[in-house]
Amino acid sequence: MNEIDKRLAALGIELPEASAPAANYVSFVRTGNQLFIAGQTSVAPDGTMLTGRLGDGLELETGQRAARYCGIRLLAQMKAACGGDLTKVKRVVKLGGFVCANPEDTGPLIPQIINGCSDLMVAVFGDAGKHARFAVGSPSLPRNAAVEIDAVVEIE
Amino acid sequence: MNEIDKRLAALGIELPEASAPAANYVSFVRTGNQLFIAGQTSVAPDGTMLTGRLGDGLELETGQRAARYCGIRLLAQMKAACGGDLTKVKRVVKLGGFVCANPEDTGPLIPQIINGCSDLMVAVFGDAGKHARFAVGSPSLPRNAAVEIDAVVEIE
Amino acid sequence: MNEIDKRLAALGIELPEASAPAANYVSFVRTGNQLFIAGQTSVAPDGTMLTGRLGDGLELETGQRAARYCGIRLLAQMKAACGGDLTKVKRVVKLGGFVCANPEDTGPLIPQIINGCSDLMVAVFGDAGKHARFAVGSPSLPRNAAVEIDAVVEIE
Repeated sequence: MNEIDKRLAALGIELPEASAPAANYVSFVRTGNQLFIAGQTSVAPDGTMLTGRLGDGLELETGQRAARYCGIRLLAQMKAACGGDLTKVKRVVKLGGFVCANPEDTGPLIPQIINGCSDLMVAVFGDAGKHARFAVGSPSLPRNAAVEIDAVVEIE
Repeated sequence: MNEIDKRLAALGIELPEASAPAANYVSFVRTGNQLFIAGQTSVAPDGTMLTGRLGDGLELETGQRAARYCGIRLLAQMKAACGGDLTKVKRVVKLGGFVCANPEDTGPLIPQIINGCSDLMVAVFGDAGKHARFAVGSPSLPRNAAVEIDAVVEIE
Repeated sequence: MNEIDKRLAALGIELPEASAPAANYVSFVRTGNQLFIAGQTSVAPDGTMLTGRLGDGLELETGQRAARYCGIRLLAQMKAACGGDLTKVKRVVKLGGFVCANPEDTGPLIPQIINGCSDLMVAVFGDAGKHARFAVGSPSLPRNAAVEIDAVVEIE
């Protein structure tokens, strides 16, 4: 086990198989040293979608868990892109975070929810996990996901 | 005609003139081997905007057509950026897809709509057209467009 | 004062301190010659958030001012990333613009609002400020911001 795998184990995270999209796109594309990863939705480890909407029942803590699920699936894609070796990730460059949200009074919770993914990146990669990001609301996400997050990553 | 032009002809697609924005931005910027293309809205070949909203009358098939229109306009920008030669496109790296949508029960249709653009990229470029992407809902898009899609493309 | 600082002074713009996020992310990441800047919300020079929503009281002119505030904060991050020397900015590559908006009849105003930031980039950098962009609506933004804009910039 390399250092990143040990941290994942210490965090109790078992990465799922990197999911394959069911359409004419792919989960990641490498261009130069950059890896563009497709938006990952909040699928739980048991394979069910964590759905919900801020302002209509989705609680902060559940939303953070949803963002963490997105992060775990982003990690699975990074691992697949790196031939299984996450130490080849040099930097998490950017996360694009969308939270399913009603308009009223949901703004302050949106960044806190995306922190569920941001915190995971730093827990796994340390300083190399610190990224730029946006965090915004969306009226509707694929399969009614609570959260969708895409990423740009620098790799060896 | 090069190979890509032949495929476009076989698909019955005539690319429009690459549109010029009416403001202080441009339709594409090249940085290194990457081309960042501005969000293209769902303007039909006859120049009219395909408007509409999921959950308020926009049907799946019309939405897919809207996404395809975005794709055709992305192709027109790529062609302009490549001096007319689309064989210089090495890879469609990423699409960012926004579908105008009401909150209720629209989530499952969003990825299917963006497929209208994803499928076009693969029909035109083959494997080089396979991209990472996000697909999300938006309450409102420029000129009430049904769909807006931006892109990152790797070129020679 | 270098040329860019002079233009900022002529525009009457005093850049604020580059803000530090309160979470496990950072305001910018450099990868190669690209700088990815985190989404900047519409914080006014006095430190208060310009909130509001298109279709619910936010006027065009106020929205444009909000987008300009985002742009000023993006400039502050560029300056910090360039060690204080904005002449190292070679090109503003891309802006991702989100405007807080209700669904009804707000589409046409969204691009006009984001112009508040686009115009600023060109006023400061000239042709090098001309960028690709997307401009979309969002139901809800962090801290109820009226506008959030992120950026990709090419630097020396």
